[in-house]
Amino acid sequence: MERTEISTYGEFGLIHHLTRNIELHNASSILGVGDDAAVIDHFGKQTVVTTDLLIEGIHFDLSYTPLKHLGYKSIIANLSDVCAMNANPTQVTMSIGVSNRLSVEALEEFYEGVYAACNKYQVDLVGGDTASSQKGFIISVTALGEVDADKVVLRSTAKKGDLLCCSGNLGGAYIGLLFLEREKRIYLENPSIQPDLEGESHVIGRLLKPEARKDIIDFFEQAQILPTSMMDISDGLSSEILHICEKSGVGCVLYEDKIPISEESRNAAFKFQIDPTACALSGGEDYELLFTIRQEDFDKIKTHEHISVIGYMTEADKGAHIITKGGNTYPISAQGWNAFKK
Amino acid sequence: MERTEISTYGEFGLIHHLTRNIELHNASSILGVGDDAAVIDHFGKQTVVTTDLLIEGIHFDLSYTPLKHLGYKSIIANLSDVCAMNANPTQVTMSIGVSNRLSVEALEEFYEGVYAACNKYQVDLVGGDTASSQKGFIISVTALGEVDADKVVLRSTAKKGDLLCCSGNLGGAYIGLLFLEREKRIYLENPSIQPDLEGESHVIGRLLKPEARKDIIDFFEQAQILPTSMMDISDGLSSEILHICEKSGVGCVLYEDKIPISEESRNAAFKFQIDPTACALSGGEDYELLFTIRQEDFDKIKTHEHISVIGYMTEADKGAHIITKGGNTYPISAQGWNAFKK
Repeated sequence: MERTEISTYGEFGLIHHLTRNIELHNASSILGVGDDAAVIDHFGKQTVVTTDLLIEGIHFDLSYTPLKHLGYKSIIANLSDVCAMNANPTQVTMSIGVSNRLSVEALEEFYEGVYAACNKYQVDLVGGDTASSQKGFIISVTALGEVDADKVVLRSTAKKGDLLCCSGNLGGAYIGLLFLEREKRIYLENPSIQPDLEGESHVIGRLLKPEARKDIIDFFEQAQILPTSMMDISDGLSSEILHICEKSGVGCVLYEDKIPISEESRNAAFKFQIDPTACALSGGEDYELLFTIRQEDFDKIKTHEHISVIGYMTEADKGAHIITKGGNTYPISAQGWNAFKK
Repeated sequence: MERTEISTYGEFGLIHHLTRNIELHNASSILGVGDDAAVIDHFGKQTVVTTDLLIEGIHFDLSYTPLKHLGYKSIIANLSDVCAMNANPTQVTMSIGVSNRLSVEALEEFYEGVYAACNKYQVDLVGGDTASSQKGFIISVTALGEVDADKVVLRSTAKKGDLLCCSGNLGGAYIGLLFLEREKRIYLENPSIQPDLEGESHVIGRLLKPEARKDIIDFFEQAQILPTSMMDISDGLSSEILHICEKSGVGCVLYEDKIPISEESRNAAFKFQIDPTACALSGGEDYELLFTIRQEDFDKIKTHEHISVIGYMTEADKGAHIITKGGNTYPISAQGWNAFKK
């Protein structure tokens, strides 16, 4: 593969090179990359803004994460947060800190993923910063989205009696991570052994190429559903449920047998002899939506193949509990990933 | 000084702790920290958005940068970009990557500076992310601002005959940097020697506690001046002038004797036996505004004590030149800081 040194371009040249083919999709993107700041119009809508900082060695491992996938996922993680406000993603900024270890071709690959996500979701890359870093690859993304003022959905507005729902299926990304970490260990011990990922493309895809559930937001619009609360599932179902309960001042009952887990994830979990439910509850990075709806809206969602009702909200003093397949009741505890606690 | 480990709080607890006293200043800040994203209204204005990534060891040196100043400056650098669009800064997000090397008290000190800047400029901190970093302190700021659609000022719209102007004085921050780097070297060679910064508070202040020239933007509004082009001076005057010339398709004449340099900066430069003009042309981080106005607007700015006319714009094929105090003419070349070229 060709290798062009970053120094060939210099800081301004590098930004220009990486953003030279941008086409803007949204009428609201008045001015994109190339000035002190981007300019956005709103046509009467409100804006949501969210940001994420991703650091090599903490949030991703370049030894098994293709750069194109990393670019894609960096964008998706932020679009997912925008969707979780019931908003339509419209713009992103992307800043990267890179060392000379990466070539221009490697960065181009990363940006291919960035642009693939932007194109798929019709989002405009309108700005960013490129910094030199001696300390690994650093990614900072900010995403903007638009929403009618009366359609913003918060975490703090779930009510007793509401149905607890989620999109898609859960736990797969975490199991994919276990596979890749295992193959990395094996490879480090014996570099002549080829990775054995046979048959695990589903869970690995869930980890490396997640999607933001804008389709669910579009469905809400079309079906005239306004969830009573919503957030995205990036740190595991348990942790997110507890957030909604705490912020909304409610409790909840979650049914283990209603938690959507794909057949592929289930089988893959068994190979590791771990409980698929535990992966859904405590694994992360699924980027599905967790939301509550009024009971009256049940008929509107009951046939949607990507929406599962997994429980219901109760009074706060009842606490948050899971009812297992065996009929036992346990308090839900957050064991999601926490970077600071060891 | 007390030392509380970051692990005491955990990731969510840390964000909550650092942002617990936020008060929102702007009616446009509908929802701040605490959900998947912040929500902003616009009342018919357009939004500008800009972002910066700052990395320890590349952009700042904690051995002589007090954390409070670093927090302040991180915000200011982005507000300066917002002002450079002729917009009024309204919201920021702040993401940090921190290692356990830093205590909670150290982060509180950093946020004291962040809040001091937010309060001074009446800007709301509405979001952010906290990540664990084994690789030094990492800061990512995104700033939003608002502007009437017909008042956005770009870099690309200067015209032949326009007057070239800048705010404040230039070069000081670079000279401040030279002082601090010198004292650091001396200290590393002999830790018993106390830093000798006597009398250099001006240039050190220019480096460590810069301001965004929102006062100039407010003056434009009040005096009914719409600059024909504008950007902020963060990489040295030469580099910024060349940006405006290139983007606008014009040339320019810059007069050395018109470049505003404070008496303190001039004296400090002489101690280092370097040319104060070179510091203004090629030093960085002054965060002043560089802009062009129509000749008809000269009367409106001529008595403003913080605005200097430093030259005028010409046809593109005349190029960009500086006329020295001695009457010689040289092409302007960008020797601003470039992180990738050595």
